[in-house]
Amino acid sequence: MTSTNEGHHDVTRRRFMSIAGLVGIGAVGTALVPDGVRIERQTSANAEAMAGMDTATASANPTVAAAQTASEDVPMTADQMDAIHEAGIKSFPAVTKGEGGVPLKYEMDGEVKVFRLTSSVIQWEFDAGKTTEAWAYNGIVPGPEIRATEGDRVRIILENQLPESTAIHWHGLIVPNDQDGVPFITQPPIKSGTTYTYEFTLREGNAGSHMYHSHMNSAKQVTMGLLGAFIVEPKDVSTRPAFDREYTVILNDGPIGGFSLNGKSFPATKPLTAKKGEKVLIRYMNEGLMIHPMHLHGMPQTVIAHDGWLLPQPYKCDTINIAPGQRFEAIVDATEVGIWAFHCHILSHAESDRGMFGMVTVLVIEA
Amino acid sequence: MTSTNEGHHDVTRRRFMSIAGLVGIGAVGTALVPDGVRIERQTSANAEAMAGMDTATASANPTVAAAQTASEDVPMTADQMDAIHEAGIKSFPAVTKGEGGVPLKYEMDGEVKVFRLTSSVIQWEFDAGKTTEAWAYNGIVPGPEIRATEGDRVRIILENQLPESTAIHWHGLIVPNDQDGVPFITQPPIKSGTTYTYEFTLREGNAGSHMYHSHMNSAKQVTMGLLGAFIVEPKDVSTRPAFDREYTVILNDGPIGGFSLNGKSFPATKPLTAKKGEKVLIRYMNEGLMIHPMHLHGMPQTVIAHDGWLLPQPYKCDTINIAPGQRFEAIVDATEVGIWAFHCHILSHAESDRGMFGMVTVLVIEA
Amino acid sequence: MTSTNEGHHDVTRRRFMSIAGLVGIGAVGTALVPDGVRIERQTSANAEAMAGMDTATASANPTVAAAQTASEDVPMTADQMDAIHEAGIKSFPAVTKGEGGVPLKYEMDGEVKVFRLTSSVIQWEFDAGKTTEAWAYNGIVPGPEIRATEGDRVRIILENQLPESTAIHWHGLIVPNDQDGVPFITQPPIKSGTTYTYEFTLREGNAGSHMYHSHMNSAKQVTMGLLGAFIVEPKDVSTRPAFDREYTVILNDGPIGGFSLNGKSFPATKPLTAKKGEKVLIRYMNEGLMIHPMHLHGMPQTVIAHDGWLLPQPYKCDTINIAPGQRFEAIVDATEVGIWAFHCHILSHAESDRGMFGMVTVLVIEA
Repeated sequence: MTSTNEGHHDVTRRRFMSIAGLVGIGAVGTALVPDGVRIERQTSANAEAMAGMDTATASANPTVAAAQTASEDVPMTADQMDAIHEAGIKSFPAVTKGEGGVPLKYEMDGEVKVFRLTSSVIQWEFDAGKTTEAWAYNGIVPGPEIRATEGDRVRIILENQLPESTAIHWHGLIVPNDQDGVPFITQPPIKSGTTYTYEFTLREGNAGSHMYHSHMNSAKQVTMGLLGAFIVEPKDVSTRPAFDREYTVILNDGPIGGFSLNGKSFPATKPLTAKKGEKVLIRYMNEGLMIHPMHLHGMPQTVIAHDGWLLPQPYKCDTINIAPGQRFEAIVDATEVGIWAFHCHILSHAESDRGMFGMVTVLVIEA
Repeated sequence: MTSTNEGHHDVTRRRFMSIAGLVGIGAVGTALVPDGVRIERQTSANAEAMAGMDTATASANPTVAAAQTASEDVPMTADQMDAIHEAGIKSFPAVTKGEGGVPLKYEMDGEVKVFRLTSSVIQWEFDAGKTTEAWAYNGIVPGPEIRATEGDRVRIILENQLPESTAIHWHGLIVPNDQDGVPFITQPPIKSGTTYTYEFTLREGNAGSHMYHSHMNSAKQVTMGLLGAFIVEPKDVSTRPAFDREYTVILNDGPIGGFSLNGKSFPATKPLTAKKGEKVLIRYMNEGLMIHPMHLHGMPQTVIAHDGWLLPQPYKCDTINIAPGQRFEAIVDATEVGIWAFHCHILSHAESDRGMFGMVTVLVIEA
Repeated sequence: MTSTNEGHHDVTRRRFMSIAGLVGIGAVGTALVPDGVRIERQTSANAEAMAGMDTATASANPTVAAAQTASEDVPMTADQMDAIHEAGIKSFPAVTKGEGGVPLKYEMDGEVKVFRLTSSVIQWEFDAGKTTEAWAYNGIVPGPEIRATEGDRVRIILENQLPESTAIHWHGLIVPNDQDGVPFITQPPIKSGTTYTYEFTLREGNAGSHMYHSHMNSAKQVTMGLLGAFIVEPKDVSTRPAFDREYTVILNDGPIGGFSLNGKSFPATKPLTAKKGEKVLIRYMNEGLMIHPMHLHGMPQTVIAHDGWLLPQPYKCDTINIAPGQRFEAIVDATEVGIWAFHCHILSHAESDRGMFGMVTVLVIEA
């Protein structure tokens, strides 16, 4: 973890293992390591080594090491499968460079909140040890979270450092037509090397979980990373259900980044945490090209809003089907203590014979 | 546009450009054309030429021309990408031969409304300049819209001129079992060269947006075009939410026709239009093999019915996920003036590095 | 049909043909058989032969025989297509070995209901004449149905005879974290040749349609067959909508088993039956890797529960979109007499030029 991002992690690896111990789970893995399996001793050694490090390099990642040891061409034994699976879990949350979705600071220009974005080509570590090219706002995937309040006047200034044109659509926001971000329909494309300014007022009644993303060459630009959350808080908080803490979970499935939650694949995803008795708001946003049904173990989710709009009749479920472009807000009553798996239930997006990967994280509820 | 279909277009290309001018957008494209880019001058010339034509040939289509100039084998420059993207938008709504979903006239036989369909192999211009084989009712894709009222007795006579057997299922209608259209279960297949008659009464309570389509070799026959809207109006209009105008949007994604709305791919799709203050009813119907989340820019949609059945509790959203076989009715309060993009949010069904295509249209709201 | 499973079939082939006769449909097929078409005489002979058999072998299946006669390399004539299509329908419900989802018996240990499962590699006849390897609980796909009541204490003992480790997740049940079945997070993996015991109390308020399935190497283990229904009945039946009979419909789409309903592909699927006036509860469960919109012909379904949780506002529709991990409960008012097709509306999961296959069955309503 780089020092820049350290403050944003709610749960570091070391703290996660400590929580796991508290709920009586931590010892499971090591107790099970069978004797004489070279690969497992190796990964355990890596895991131990890593637990003591503040900065990990890609090659030290136990999942990667295990995967490298057991070649994909040779069938694995059952014990090898277990070991690789264990190594993945034990490395969670894996240390990677960069954290997406951090809050975007703004400056005031009179009554206007001014946000600044730069789109550029970067290198992003989607998965532990797998760094590839991404296209990003402000150097992170997802782009920084823009957050403001109903009635606010906002100005967003985009400097386009990409090699091609782009434009930003404010997905879910009711804006004047000429601020809608659709090239050649509502604005010219924003050419490489130029800067463009959007400005609009956040309409009252339009609170909720929205998004911003590229609306040019979008099948490429969005899946490559040009996306972020745009959260509009209600002027009167009593108009929306109360919660104690909140998480934004942005789904993506690009050909480069693979299956990711907030720009990271398991075990590099970030756990959600809560204390027993809290209400946890989860803001789901799908920026991918596929539909993903997100399943939380352990307790139901109450769906309260669709695309930012409050449902007149919230309903409970445990698996929420989220299509590209959709956002759902759900509240979890954190009644059950433990470490609860939380993943896309298209199982090929979440688990293989090498263990869990992709769209997987956990919700940790402490007593 | 052929003279036959001209009357069915609500917005012609010339009128669309005029509306775009009214809302202050029309000039964007030309103002941006950079000097010295041969391809853009060429497409602009084509666009000018086409705007003055009542009948366009495929080769005159600017999107096609632009695409041909910039070979798919050679990487495009950013300016070339912009030019192709612009040419596509500027050609919208592109003139193509044939319009699907036009109302089907009927004759009265006593108390019975008699509709006539013929299924046959045709040539259909799914996209500007791309004419391919389709299988169609009455020579158009989608087939003509059948519309009647709860309580009506209807007779539909199908003459099958296809090279193989077929049958029609009245998807969503409550009919006697022997009128349900499933070969070898409720009827014999309708052999090539034969005629078959369906007759039933539209059940009270069964109003709403329904469909008719082939139920034989259907993965092929339906995606090739053997489908249409069957709209049942309520006897008492006060039983359903009021609206000022309505549009049917039929989604399809066959291997031949590609991603289409009402049998056409952008830029050959038809814009939806409304005047500020109107309530616009959109009848979504999915006749494809994939699920499509339809996203309207600019303002929310209120979903009022699922498969024709009124929801006890309508809800708002901006992206409606529509699976094959499903219909949703949504009302848009046309509060925001402008040209609003309206597309499937699986971005690979809507935009590539060559600009927008496929399941894309716009909602134009005039002041 | 093996004698072991015979009792579980509500509708045998012979009885189905008799019902078809009652509702006036049975004669359709034979009346249509054209003269001189060798393939049809052959399949008709097979069909007659099979109708008189209590045990069928794979090679006697008429669909298979017809398909073999008309090679896939040679284009079929329209009459050949009809004949193959008819043969498939006429063989429905095709006799296959093994029936999944039968109730699992339990023993009492004091106050605890004790259920026993064994996971192993088996041979399973997913489709008539197509027997392949499957991974199963208690030798059947889906595994046996576990059914208990809110407040019950249950113990499930799994003996793992698979060649690799496994674990069971109680999908939808609120259980103590250490009973949740996620390897290396809540428990050790259950090694090949070992036995593991789960025990928990069915929480009040957690009634409804739930599932159990593997949570290790799950993209493979679940699609191969390690899945089953876990139905929790309410302590007070008045808390849930009343019904006269119920069916569980488990969707799967694995690379081995193909598109299946309750472990069988049409024509080996089992018909649902009801008498006019009854309320039929359908419990949909998706254990596959794809989303499936299930369409019932003839009358609407009222969706009453999502993932076991009662909807505060049930709604009607005819096509329910079910994502992996989701369960929906719907009630059909059996008002319409007849044989109603009931299938996934992604048509490529249900019908080809060789007729209906995969995720297809019927609802038969008798007067």
